[in-house]
Amino acid sequence: MKKAYVTVGKSVTRLDARDKVRGVATYIVDMKFSGMLHGKVLYSKFPHARIVKIDTSRAKRLPGVKAVITGEDMPFLHGEALYDTPFLAVGKVRYMGEAVAAVAAVDEETAEEALDLIEVEYEELPAVFNPGDALKQGAPILHEKLGEYYHPPVITPVPGTNICNHTKIRKGDIEKGFKEADHIFEDTFTTQMTQHGTIEPHAAICMVTPDGKLTLWGNNDSPYRARREIAVALKIPLHRVRLVGAPYIGGNFGGKGGLKAEAIAIALAWNYRGRPIKIVNTREEEFTSTVVRHPTVITLKTGVKKDGTIVARQTTCLWDTGAYAEKGPTVSRMGGASSAGVYNIPHVSIDSYCVYTNNQISGALRGYSGPQTAWAYESQMDMIAERLGLDPVQMRLKCAYDNGSVHAGGQVLSDVTLKTCLNKVVEAMKWDKPSPLTPYRGRGVAFGERFIKTPFASSAFLKINEDGTVDLISSTSEVGQGGETTMCQIAAEELGVPLASVSKASPDTAYTPFDESTTSSRSTFHMGNAIRMAARDAKEQILQMAATQMKVPVKKLTIVDGNVQVVGKPETATPLGQVMRRRYGASGGVLGRGFYFPDGLAPEGEYFTFNCIFWMYCAQGAEVEVDPRTGKVTVLKMVAAHDVGTAINPKSCIEQIAGGVSFGIGFTFYEDLIRENGKTMNPSFLSYKMPTTMDMPPLDPYLVEPHCEQGPFGAKAVGEPSSVPTAPAIANAIANAIGVRITDLPITPDKILAALKNKT
Amino acid sequence: MKKAYVTVGKSVTRLDARDKVRGVATYIVDMKFSGMLHGKVLYSKFPHARIVKIDTSRAKRLPGVKAVITGEDMPFLHGEALYDTPFLAVGKVRYMGEAVAAVAAVDEETAEEALDLIEVEYEELPAVFNPGDALKQGAPILHEKLGEYYHPPVITPVPGTNICNHTKIRKGDIEKGFKEADHIFEDTFTTQMTQHGTIEPHAAICMVTPDGKLTLWGNNDSPYRARREIAVALKIPLHRVRLVGAPYIGGNFGGKGGLKAEAIAIALAWNYRGRPIKIVNTREEEFTSTVVRHPTVITLKTGVKKDGTIVARQTTCLWDTGAYAEKGPTVSRMGGASSAGVYNIPHVSIDSYCVYTNNQISGALRGYSGPQTAWAYESQMDMIAERLGLDPVQMRLKCAYDNGSVHAGGQVLSDVTLKTCLNKVVEAMKWDKPSPLTPYRGRGVAFGERFIKTPFASSAFLKINEDGTVDLISSTSEVGQGGETTMCQIAAEELGVPLASVSKASPDTAYTPFDESTTSSRSTFHMGNAIRMAARDAKEQILQMAATQMKVPVKKLTIVDGNVQVVGKPETATPLGQVMRRRYGASGGVLGRGFYFPDGLAPEGEYFTFNCIFWMYCAQGAEVEVDPRTGKVTVLKMVAAHDVGTAINPKSCIEQIAGGVSFGIGFTFYEDLIRENGKTMNPSFLSYKMPTTMDMPPLDPYLVEPHCEQGPFGAKAVGEPSSVPTAPAIANAIANAIGVRITDLPITPDKILAALKNKT
Repeated sequence: MKKAYVTVGKSVTRLDARDKVRGVATYIVDMKFSGMLHGKVLYSKFPHARIVKIDTSRAKRLPGVKAVITGEDMPFLHGEALYDTPFLAVGKVRYMGEAVAAVAAVDEETAEEALDLIEVEYEELPAVFNPGDALKQGAPILHEKLGEYYHPPVITPVPGTNICNHTKIRKGDIEKGFKEADHIFEDTFTTQMTQHGTIEPHAAICMVTPDGKLTLWGNNDSPYRARREIAVALKIPLHRVRLVGAPYIGGNFGGKGGLKAEAIAIALAWNYRGRPIKIVNTREEEFTSTVVRHPTVITLKTGVKKDGTIVARQTTCLWDTGAYAEKGPTVSRMGGASSAGVYNIPHVSIDSYCVYTNNQISGALRGYSGPQTAWAYESQMDMIAERLGLDPVQMRLKCAYDNGSVHAGGQVLSDVTLKTCLNKVVEAMKWDKPSPLTPYRGRGVAFGERFIKTPFASSAFLKINEDGTVDLISSTSEVGQGGETTMCQIAAEELGVPLASVSKASPDTAYTPFDESTTSSRSTFHMGNAIRMAARDAKEQILQMAATQMKVPVKKLTIVDGNVQVVGKPETATPLGQVMRRRYGASGGVLGRGFYFPDGLAPEGEYFTFNCIFWMYCAQGAEVEVDPRTGKVTVLKMVAAHDVGTAINPKSCIEQIAGGVSFGIGFTFYEDLIRENGKTMNPSFLSYKMPTTMDMPPLDPYLVEPHCEQGPFGAKAVGEPSSVPTAPAIANAIANAIGVRITDLPITPDKILAALKNKT
Repeated sequence: MKKAYVTVGKSVTRLDARDKVRGVATYIVDMKFSGMLHGKVLYSKFPHARIVKIDTSRAKRLPGVKAVITGEDMPFLHGEALYDTPFLAVGKVRYMGEAVAAVAAVDEETAEEALDLIEVEYEELPAVFNPGDALKQGAPILHEKLGEYYHPPVITPVPGTNICNHTKIRKGDIEKGFKEADHIFEDTFTTQMTQHGTIEPHAAICMVTPDGKLTLWGNNDSPYRARREIAVALKIPLHRVRLVGAPYIGGNFGGKGGLKAEAIAIALAWNYRGRPIKIVNTREEEFTSTVVRHPTVITLKTGVKKDGTIVARQTTCLWDTGAYAEKGPTVSRMGGASSAGVYNIPHVSIDSYCVYTNNQISGALRGYSGPQTAWAYESQMDMIAERLGLDPVQMRLKCAYDNGSVHAGGQVLSDVTLKTCLNKVVEAMKWDKPSPLTPYRGRGVAFGERFIKTPFASSAFLKINEDGTVDLISSTSEVGQGGETTMCQIAAEELGVPLASVSKASPDTAYTPFDESTTSSRSTFHMGNAIRMAARDAKEQILQMAATQMKVPVKKLTIVDGNVQVVGKPETATPLGQVMRRRYGASGGVLGRGFYFPDGLAPEGEYFTFNCIFWMYCAQGAEVEVDPRTGKVTVLKMVAAHDVGTAINPKSCIEQIAGGVSFGIGFTFYEDLIRENGKTMNPSFLSYKMPTTMDMPPLDPYLVEPHCEQGPFGAKAVGEPSSVPTAPAIANAIANAIGVRITDLPITPDKILAALKNKT
């Protein structure tokens, strides 16, 4: 029987809702300081070129200009997985969004004007724009010193090539597997370059004191990870770097991690000390110079038995990571691990290559490898089912992981809910009944799997104020996901206080304790556990205080609605504030601390496995109608079933699913960052098409809520997987509707028309 | 034998020194926000008047003006001891510095302009400007509703009078005491009104969201105490009020507590929501509308035996607290408790009255009652010694408290070092030798005593970063006293890490845990203990981690210079960062918490005693030369011996003593806020004379360092008492030099000349 919770499991209104609706929520752009300077950036004119000479002398003479810097002024490398990235280009440029020079001036206009006065002489180099070409013999090499870059052991660059990571996984004996197969199918799937399109651009303010203390105000999703990157890059101790998070971040989706606008603000402030320097990206800079989703080329070679049993799968994944590695090595590593799908396959061989090109930099974008790999393995699943004349749902149910299955990466799985999710979807779609759909209508399903970033720590402080209200002190960023509300719900539940009594401020590494990141859907589980531990720590102290005062054993006490009481005796209810007042008078407060680290995944000190504290599972279904004259696809309905463990805030979980599906819709049909010879051709919301609410199909979201033993109140996670299965579910429905298979995203009317034409 | 410390006891350079010298330390005035408005205040034209009508309509119509408010818009009372203070005057004005209306506008100039457009009609009321008059029958009553004000039980206002607190202490039987006396001497001593004159003015930025969350950025010395005052006044829960401390505060000396500029910022923001509103006081406003030191009239009636034994003392203290109570009730309460001096007296009767007048508001100013009471009891001590023909040093040594003495307030004293301090002073002054001083030269000594605010809590969080560096999270404000450095030294010592590895950021009630206040010299002892507890908490965890890794019992481990090592085996030294890395990989951190509350002073729940966790003791001596033609006094030398317990940072302690003596010099000779019918006549640094370094005499400071068992590493405190004995020591030296006794401060040349004239 599920335990009855008071605050957990309730669809409470988000704590940030009112301020946001009323326009009083503050963001990094709202912050100003006395003497603050404004920075602007000069970008490369070429996708790949040697910098022969930069003349900044005219720019420096412009009145109001305080600093003009180039890469030579900032001889450090930073990076998220591999320290390969200069703060500004040094010696050569590797893509057109690369900073070549930067200016700090008294206002933005002066800084802009100064950019025009900087003269750069280039010597163009041959460039390469797709990972296939980049791997060829004789391809232009982007990073000549790849072998010298600092990186953790888990990252495996191949010096002398454009491969910044090669993940190789072997399970069973792939050749034996193919021999056992009745059929071998080899298909290639590609995905396009997309961008997060957050409403709020990247922005940062940096100040460095003359003796090198660095403070960065920004909208970075993961202040501690960024602090580490800055400290390692600049070779300064961690406590001399402070990251102050803005109260709110206007959208993240994986794009606000690492150093983006931050890198320029840091470089300027490092060179011009004692004054804060602010950088706010333009929309164009957002599209050209921050980060995008990896375009991929994934080839699956799959051996199956006639009955649909999969016996072998070989995957080759090429991830176009652009000019610098950013999160590419880890995206390609965990993407590789998931590329064989969610199926019991005895023989698996995976090669996942993260490849430098002269494109803009790829990194994390909601799903973080999941949408690309699912696009491949879930499209091919229907293709195989069709070739074998099997029902795609039945084939999935037959092959999908169960508890005890062994993941391609080696982990023996538990808490697997794939079939529960799929059964929920097909039930909602009435899959067992003959399709009521008219011609040109079809339906399809797809699974989704997403790892959770493991094992990394989260920690929290918590304080009970003198009046019994509670301040949560945690580095989880509110990026729009509802983290503030979820964390407060967890604290309220554990402490036995009303949700209205709990507040949480934004991250600030000077105060809020370590948290690896607000990414990877990890916060509810990891930070939730840390907060629960902190709350328990505080609760024990206040109950001990009350036990002494009330002269009862601490075990007999509980906290209900903000009052300590003897279990079963509501008449003994004493407000927390009163308990503290009796002990401390006007002073007061109780402090708690919690540090959560998922143990038991690997021997101590071994972090570089493919094991996860849990995997996130889901299934989605789509019903579509295709207009054969125009190629236009109308999604009539989406069904999405997601295993979230206990839903701390069901409404918030459903909103995450809806948001994820909207990303999936954009990825499936509309979004495509078009480049010509390395130049981004549509860097604006006018030309880069994102779905609006008008483009959203009706959605039936379902929460699958098995109690997760290790999760806070049984919770798992939801954000990232929500966009994973959308594209293949729709593609499968299109194939079901009109018998044509699109394998390269996005699915545009012209591709449909071309495929229909080919078919006839 | 004293334990050898590594960081404690070292005169390290202050951590804030470099930034301050280089001008990059940031203060509240440096903070700006998008859409920020600027506030200005219209003050009362009369010291006491009924407000007949305020017409703000013209001001409201001025373009750029966003809000014009009066007291009617802010129907709340605040206060530090007694909630008697409106945010702006309601119904009547009680002094000339009182806010009658306030404007928020897009810039300061517009706000100023709007003030001129506000029309106020007054009906003048009879006013009273000194506490003696205010106590007379028929005196104008300032607070007709005194009986209705909220206050804690310790405060005892007398409704129907101008007495906002009457502290009454009786020890022994005063009448019996006087009967036993050979002589009874009654003398009255007065002190003037002085002001803190901090370089940085009061300033605050307040923003209230539409649903009433209040954030206040300011230079308040005690964010938690101010949060409590705001929340109680506005009737909102504590966690909905956030006080963000500026990184640095440019001087405090007791003046930056409570709500000063804050009150106006809050009132404007409460009425005009969703935008930050900033108030920065002008220098004139600093002098007329913040807070001053209480002018006092203290009468001592002392019964002595011929041999100098004091058998009875009756004190009557009048504290002119001005128009509102502010800290007056507590100043007069603890001042009352100390008013009988530092002597064993069997029969004591104390009546200390805090009295409303139509003067500006009095509150805390370095010493917080100590300088006024010592002026009385240490002047009279020499007067009595002279009358009895005794040596003033010998008489003091005979009568002064010892361990086991019973304080007037009832506490049995321990750790009393008065005689050690005085012996140190007279030794340095070569008191035992005949005075080498020429005519018109003289020497004098005085004791000082100062309570420490007790019992109130301090608490701290601490985190060890992934690389072994440390962030201290504490609400102690750096007001110029060196608190940041002292707290970091304590953490470094306890953790065994280098001082350079420790940082501390400024207070922010959303993050830094409860601390009663950065006042009363309480931080080193109270916060120091809390930090030490937090450090121990973290240390135990990291040692446990290392014990598991190194396979040794935790008891055998220690931390030296940032490395865990087996005691006595330096070859096992392992950096803290490495210990955490082995456990958590790239993630990391260890959290500690500490909550210190001085127990054992009174039964649980009884806070309103006159007991202190310790009293601060000191003695100072002065050598002066008086020019009988001009009345000018030259202080040739000051000697100051202060019991600080273990000096955490000796240099810092000595600087505190030097600073205190400079306040004492100002109080003795120069500072005097002159009023005429309630109007402050010298509200500027041109006309209000503060001593400069050129006015400072040579100073011999001595630290008396008994190990204080309950203090962090044996530390006590230093800041407040340092100005307590200065004035009487000098006055005693003047009397010794020229045989005239000045009993009303300041000691000006004209008073000397007049006294000399009277004498002859």
